[in-house]
Amino acid sequence: MAMKTREEYIDSLRKLNLTVYMFGERIENPVDHPIIIPSMNAVALTYELASHPDYENIMTVNSHLTGEKINLFNHIFQSTDNLVQKVKRQRMLGQKSACCFQRCVGQDALNAVYSTAYEVDQKYGTSYFENIKNYVLHVQKEDLVSDGAMTDPKGDRGLPPSKQADPDLYLRVVERREDGIVVNGCKAHQTGIVNSHEVLCMPTIAMKPEDKDYAISFAVPTDAPGVIIIMGRQSCDTRKLEGTEIDVGNSEYGGHEALIIFDHVFVPNDRIFLNGETEFAGMLVERFAGHHRPSYACKVGVGDVLIGASALAADYNGINKAAHIKDKLIEMTHLNETIYSSALACSYEGVATPSGAFLIDLMLANVCKQNVTKFPYEMGRHAQDIAGGIVVTQPSEKDFRNEEIGHYVEKYLKGVASVPTEHRMRIMRLIENMTLGSGAVGYLTESLHGAGSPQAQRIMIARLGNFEDKKEMAKHIAKIKS
Amino acid sequence: MAMKTREEYIDSLRKLNLTVYMFGERIENPVDHPIIIPSMNAVALTYELASHPDYENIMTVNSHLTGEKINLFNHIFQSTDNLVQKVKRQRMLGQKSACCFQRCVGQDALNAVYSTAYEVDQKYGTSYFENIKNYVLHVQKEDLVSDGAMTDPKGDRGLPPSKQADPDLYLRVVERREDGIVVNGCKAHQTGIVNSHEVLCMPTIAMKPEDKDYAISFAVPTDAPGVIIIMGRQSCDTRKLEGTEIDVGNSEYGGHEALIIFDHVFVPNDRIFLNGETEFAGMLVERFAGHHRPSYACKVGVGDVLIGASALAADYNGINKAAHIKDKLIEMTHLNETIYSSALACSYEGVATPSGAFLIDLMLANVCKQNVTKFPYEMGRHAQDIAGGIVVTQPSEKDFRNEEIGHYVEKYLKGVASVPTEHRMRIMRLIENMTLGSGAVGYLTESLHGAGSPQAQRIMIARLGNFEDKKEMAKHIAKIKS
Amino acid sequence: MAMKTREEYIDSLRKLNLTVYMFGERIENPVDHPIIIPSMNAVALTYELASHPDYENIMTVNSHLTGEKINLFNHIFQSTDNLVQKVKRQRMLGQKSACCFQRCVGQDALNAVYSTAYEVDQKYGTSYFENIKNYVLHVQKEDLVSDGAMTDPKGDRGLPPSKQADPDLYLRVVERREDGIVVNGCKAHQTGIVNSHEVLCMPTIAMKPEDKDYAISFAVPTDAPGVIIIMGRQSCDTRKLEGTEIDVGNSEYGGHEALIIFDHVFVPNDRIFLNGETEFAGMLVERFAGHHRPSYACKVGVGDVLIGASALAADYNGINKAAHIKDKLIEMTHLNETIYSSALACSYEGVATPSGAFLIDLMLANVCKQNVTKFPYEMGRHAQDIAGGIVVTQPSEKDFRNEEIGHYVEKYLKGVASVPTEHRMRIMRLIENMTLGSGAVGYLTESLHGAGSPQAQRIMIARLGNFEDKKEMAKHIAKIKS
Amino acid sequence: MAMKTREEYIDSLRKLNLTVYMFGERIENPVDHPIIIPSMNAVALTYELASHPDYENIMTVNSHLTGEKINLFNHIFQSTDNLVQKVKRQRMLGQKSACCFQRCVGQDALNAVYSTAYEVDQKYGTSYFENIKNYVLHVQKEDLVSDGAMTDPKGDRGLPPSKQADPDLYLRVVERREDGIVVNGCKAHQTGIVNSHEVLCMPTIAMKPEDKDYAISFAVPTDAPGVIIIMGRQSCDTRKLEGTEIDVGNSEYGGHEALIIFDHVFVPNDRIFLNGETEFAGMLVERFAGHHRPSYACKVGVGDVLIGASALAADYNGINKAAHIKDKLIEMTHLNETIYSSALACSYEGVATPSGAFLIDLMLANVCKQNVTKFPYEMGRHAQDIAGGIVVTQPSEKDFRNEEIGHYVEKYLKGVASVPTEHRMRIMRLIENMTLGSGAVGYLTESLHGAGSPQAQRIMIARLGNFEDKKEMAKHIAKIKS
Repeated sequence: MAMKTREEYIDSLRKLNLTVYMFGERIENPVDHPIIIPSMNAVALTYELASHPDYENIMTVNSHLTGEKINLFNHIFQSTDNLVQKVKRQRMLGQKSACCFQRCVGQDALNAVYSTAYEVDQKYGTSYFENIKNYVLHVQKEDLVSDGAMTDPKGDRGLPPSKQADPDLYLRVVERREDGIVVNGCKAHQTGIVNSHEVLCMPTIAMKPEDKDYAISFAVPTDAPGVIIIMGRQSCDTRKLEGTEIDVGNSEYGGHEALIIFDHVFVPNDRIFLNGETEFAGMLVERFAGHHRPSYACKVGVGDVLIGASALAADYNGINKAAHIKDKLIEMTHLNETIYSSALACSYEGVATPSGAFLIDLMLANVCKQNVTKFPYEMGRHAQDIAGGIVVTQPSEKDFRNEEIGHYVEKYLKGVASVPTEHRMRIMRLIENMTLGSGAVGYLTESLHGAGSPQAQRIMIARLGNFEDKKEMAKHIAKIKS
Repeated sequence: MAMKTREEYIDSLRKLNLTVYMFGERIENPVDHPIIIPSMNAVALTYELASHPDYENIMTVNSHLTGEKINLFNHIFQSTDNLVQKVKRQRMLGQKSACCFQRCVGQDALNAVYSTAYEVDQKYGTSYFENIKNYVLHVQKEDLVSDGAMTDPKGDRGLPPSKQADPDLYLRVVERREDGIVVNGCKAHQTGIVNSHEVLCMPTIAMKPEDKDYAISFAVPTDAPGVIIIMGRQSCDTRKLEGTEIDVGNSEYGGHEALIIFDHVFVPNDRIFLNGETEFAGMLVERFAGHHRPSYACKVGVGDVLIGASALAADYNGINKAAHIKDKLIEMTHLNETIYSSALACSYEGVATPSGAFLIDLMLANVCKQNVTKFPYEMGRHAQDIAGGIVVTQPSEKDFRNEEIGHYVEKYLKGVASVPTEHRMRIMRLIENMTLGSGAVGYLTESLHGAGSPQAQRIMIARLGNFEDKKEMAKHIAKIKS
Repeated sequence: MAMKTREEYIDSLRKLNLTVYMFGERIENPVDHPIIIPSMNAVALTYELASHPDYENIMTVNSHLTGEKINLFNHIFQSTDNLVQKVKRQRMLGQKSACCFQRCVGQDALNAVYSTAYEVDQKYGTSYFENIKNYVLHVQKEDLVSDGAMTDPKGDRGLPPSKQADPDLYLRVVERREDGIVVNGCKAHQTGIVNSHEVLCMPTIAMKPEDKDYAISFAVPTDAPGVIIIMGRQSCDTRKLEGTEIDVGNSEYGGHEALIIFDHVFVPNDRIFLNGETEFAGMLVERFAGHHRPSYACKVGVGDVLIGASALAADYNGINKAAHIKDKLIEMTHLNETIYSSALACSYEGVATPSGAFLIDLMLANVCKQNVTKFPYEMGRHAQDIAGGIVVTQPSEKDFRNEEIGHYVEKYLKGVASVPTEHRMRIMRLIENMTLGSGAVGYLTESLHGAGSPQAQRIMIARLGNFEDKKEMAKHIAKIKS
Repeated sequence: MAMKTREEYIDSLRKLNLTVYMFGERIENPVDHPIIIPSMNAVALTYELASHPDYENIMTVNSHLTGEKINLFNHIFQSTDNLVQKVKRQRMLGQKSACCFQRCVGQDALNAVYSTAYEVDQKYGTSYFENIKNYVLHVQKEDLVSDGAMTDPKGDRGLPPSKQADPDLYLRVVERREDGIVVNGCKAHQTGIVNSHEVLCMPTIAMKPEDKDYAISFAVPTDAPGVIIIMGRQSCDTRKLEGTEIDVGNSEYGGHEALIIFDHVFVPNDRIFLNGETEFAGMLVERFAGHHRPSYACKVGVGDVLIGASALAADYNGINKAAHIKDKLIEMTHLNETIYSSALACSYEGVATPSGAFLIDLMLANVCKQNVTKFPYEMGRHAQDIAGGIVVTQPSEKDFRNEEIGHYVEKYLKGVASVPTEHRMRIMRLIENMTLGSGAVGYLTESLHGAGSPQAQRIMIARLGNFEDKKEMAKHIAKIKS
């Protein structure tokens, strides 16, 4: 089947029978909800550009399973070239949307499950690899969005899954049937789940034998019975309901996160990819996180937009010749490209797993993400610095449009004479959106916690740091024999 | 007259006939508007605590003009003790409100105008000092909030006031009458203006002879004819309209900023404190900024709340024993106390001006503010790190209260078993408020730009750096004679 | 007795019969050794300036014991004014010497032992306070240098004193006699010990009952039988032996550190200030560290010299107009004054101990020192940046003075035409001295480890952080009742 | 001709008739001078490992000119694989030597001149490309070290070459003859020049038409008549003369820098690669700097040794289980790998120049070097932090070996009981060497200034930042049409 157009994608969402709640109410048609539309637009963009002549070479690839052209988002990486293509796609889409476009988590999940399932089968003679291969085929053929779901609510972080007061605080098998399993629990922070056809679940931490029921990976449609989605609030979310454009900052694109609850959901056998093989939970987590960390190359693209917005703010304010302003733009660029460097490097240094799927270099991927947890915050501060205080004190668009007082806003928010006040107001709101508003949720906090919080990377860096080898190097130089 | 109680203060506001716009509509009763109430509460707190036995010693002082007990906010500093008392008051009020309580700008303006007016009179034989003294007396006797207004819209920052395409982009005299002057223009980012009885205007930059009409300082009531206030939007402002408590984060207190427009406003002669003496504009700006920079000791108090919220988040998440979490709380504390250090130091090192009013040490005040432009951002990142991703993906209070799905939220947002889910939700929303929401406007962006953007402090540090003396020290050590 | 002159001080050193080793040889006359002379000069400066009309007000004070004028270095602080005077003296002496002048550790030790002894006596009825008071009187009357000695070698840092493989790795009592005690062990990193008449020892960590023999404090002359000093090497130490001036960088002043070994040294009863009261070891350490941390205000003075040297390097290189150079000088100044702020603040906020001696505010003192552990390193990097690569590739003074090739050095090391090449060479060597050479030992590494390594301050900040109070503040704002 | 062995290389140096001065004296046999030997050892290592079975694949390549196996250092990069191989070689050699091995500057010069000469010829019909190709052939066939020389003394940095008070402050043509040119001037900071057979000069900045005589590139033997080398001093240089091993820290390897003076040196026509084509000076500088910036991947290898040394210090001190120590090792690793990321990324993203030679991606190369200017300093501070104060106060090796007092050093410098004191002393000295001593010259200051000081990279980042494109992205998102 051919890849979906933007319209076909939106139609396909409309056909889903999702159970979605927001602000205490059931949302009947998420596709038409003003808070959800921008996030859907961002996903739709990944369909749209796949057939755009300027972008199809970066957006598509030939499937190793069918040989047919598919959206790169649904591909299992077969080479370092594929991995690098992904990084460049992430940056480009970040530039086009200035937000989280929600699909990389699905790709990273597909890849992690694919390569891990192969190794589980090698050890246990299970058929998970066949299952995931068929699932990948399905997703490719139907050109679906398959969300990846990892993060459990985790309750008391000091306790393992099986020791929680409430056993459901990690997603788990509550019934094992001949034809499949029944699962209970929840995944948190699900990016783009309402824009997805499928959800692919994975465990969230390495596990011990007693956590057997928690060591599961599977996929179900997002409208499977028992699946309930509760939307998370974002900063400034309800501005999207005001019917104005300027105040939203980024009126076209956005992201969303949600709780996805599995209330006794049935999973048929052929959709199970891990089921109790606890010692592989860690590998799956590590591979998913490994793939997902350089996915944050998207923030480099978002950063490009923020740099551009800051440079425009400098122009509009009449300060673009000031040395300190130039230097702040340089610093932002330097930080941004530092992130890009390690996203590229870990991809170029990727290696094949036994399944044939390629995995990035884990050390450099962790280094990449660790920088992502800091640099966007610094860049955000620089952007606000260049913009000026008006970024948080600008009157509303409705004041600007008001007959009685609009002329005051027009007059006094003017910057450089040649630039319309409205342009300056739009850029201020964009910077507000990206540093405090709904865009900041994706650009800042998601950069901090997505693909693992900062300490998760530090633990990996410690594990991969080869300190024993380095001690030997130092001993050699210091001529210490022992 | 006695100091006002909280209730008397609110009543006095109700009697003002302000012209206030928000979201394109005139607000008839600001005192009753849910978006304004929290900011009014913060100012009301400064009245309330002035008569609270635990706080009156830090909140009040004896007037040097009347000898009577007055609110310290309306005092002209007569000693370094007064300056230090102010710093400690700022921190305490920050701890109690977790927001901008809006009154220090007025105090700093009163002090800067007071000491400058004295020196203008010495040179020109004017009577500005008498005027400001009487104004201070009025403010003290009536126990008023006099807002300080400095920042002009500034249009093209590359041009001086008199060269702007629109001459009103800096506030100016448009008519000189026997009984006073008529002014036109606007002051931006006015903190707490709707909660103020009076506004005291000052020029925003050092000026040259050709900017004579712009070198003005005066005071008028906030409801003087021709004064129009347009409220600025804040991140998440409309959450205050939702009628819920948790989602607001800080439901009791807040701040606000606004444009205040002077559309041909008449100022009587006895309310004029500078009028064309351009060479004193720079002194006035420098002294106001000097006083105002350590006023950001309030952010140390707000920072205390953020540290407390982060520590609670760690408790509720079950991670309070983790070494990296402890270290982040230490780092936050270290940054916070570093700011406090220089606020204190510049106050203890204050000196008397010719008027007798005390001024802080300018170098250390600028050092203080420079750190304020960075550290709250770092602290905000640490707070989000400790809180976890839920800080931006938490469902709404309405979902939590919903009969059908509230139990899911209750179940899956639970952290440590002994802590009610609602407590954890409240802390997450408080951290959201302070790092992305309306609290972040005050805690982050205001810290960046209030009392001068970062580069303003760097220019002052360069000017006060005594590099020639330091070169001599180096020459002495290096035995360079010349 | 009157205060000593510079000459009297040097003579008094000459009369000591010290046992000093350096480079494997016994040094008969330390006073005349080219490596020791600069460090002696730095201490001599503290005598010289005490009678200099421009500095005596900052260098001297009236003894609270005798009422006579004494060197402030030997004073027990009686007020916050005294504490602030100390901070300003430290900065001034740093400016004059660009090195460690070695005497604050003694003053801080006297003060810590004095106030602690008082409290031990209160509990145990011992007479330590009388002993230390008499010792202070002796030091004041004879105008002596009494070094403070705290840091034990510590062996395996994972083990307490009494569990070390070698029991001497912490200084301890090995014999208790009627007339006194015999001690064995060593103190490391002793700053200026060869320039001192006396050494005052203190325990290095809080102790438990089983560490009784290690909980001792006492004073002995530096030439007491059994005291052996082994000089530590410093970077570039032997340049001082080359007989040239330029290459040394700072040819007049310097510092030194040494191991001081106590090989069965007898201590008479009246020189004992703590002897087995283990629970006071922690108080003594905390108070010494508390006093000593703001002593690093000296580095602010040294930093002033480095800023001056960098500004001169910029002048000599012809780059002093470049915006990025100016900004680096501003940044250096900002960092330097940030340190100064907390040194001042913790002193102004000092409080009286039960003994009447004043102690600084512990939190702010720790904040001060924490910044000292980082900022000089950043300032050093900026200095090298401004200086240029020549700071590490400059030919030797001997090449410069050489008849055959000196003219090449003269010609090609020329910067701005109007400045003699030699001046530029001198400044480069000064910057080298302060960032890599013997000056860097004091300016960088001593800043890192002196008065406690960074983690020591972080532990104190955690202890003093009042997190429980801050949690209550956050709960109040978030309206969490419990 | 076959590649040289280590011994053949040293013999070939011995045959050179260099004019070298150090400490005001002519050095007759540099090869045997204890200060030069370690630097020669580092270069010799690059010969030795080229024929070592474990390293030849990373050390050698087939020449594109002859097809023969050559040392990669003398190769013109023909692919991104070659560029990546270089980066990995740099890290490996840094690990083996813990110092600057001095040869990359030559390789980067060969490559920059090669590709630029091609383009000059295209424009002017000159034969520079033939000249440089023959020169490369010569260097490859004889397996020589050809140093690259760029940095002129530059005198007053505010003036261009032709405006300097002394016209020789930039290297220049003073006579044009039929058979060649005569040049006068100097190149500063020449790394490894005494260990080189040839020197390849390039201009140091972009030039204007009036600087014609300065726009030259050429090569001569290091012992050509008129070439005089004056060694630069390094921190702790003379420790190498003391005849001990421990105190040197890194007794086997080191680096050196020198002034190389051209006093009327004749250059034959076939050794000229640029001669007055001023508009190509900038390209040559940019390409050399471009190649040279990721060469600082060597510091990643040196950083590996420092991490190893720090980890050993932690072991020896008994603090390796402390969370803050582990975290500092993680931080060092993170910084180190961040540098590595961009060195790799800019190489993988390399592109072919018209000559066929490959050039790295300029933006990412500048990002790499910018981080190199900071991170080693931070890593050095962490290393000193972990090591403890003993890193700068340790007694000399001669004290340790002394019969009378050596036992005290042995006893009191003991850390963990199972580790010999000498091992701990060796590691402390290695850390001292790398952070303050002669190693710090290479690891810190060379990292700051080599391949261009920090501001040079910032200027390039500004030029390559595509701010106009980024503004368009922001306008698109903010829906600004214009």
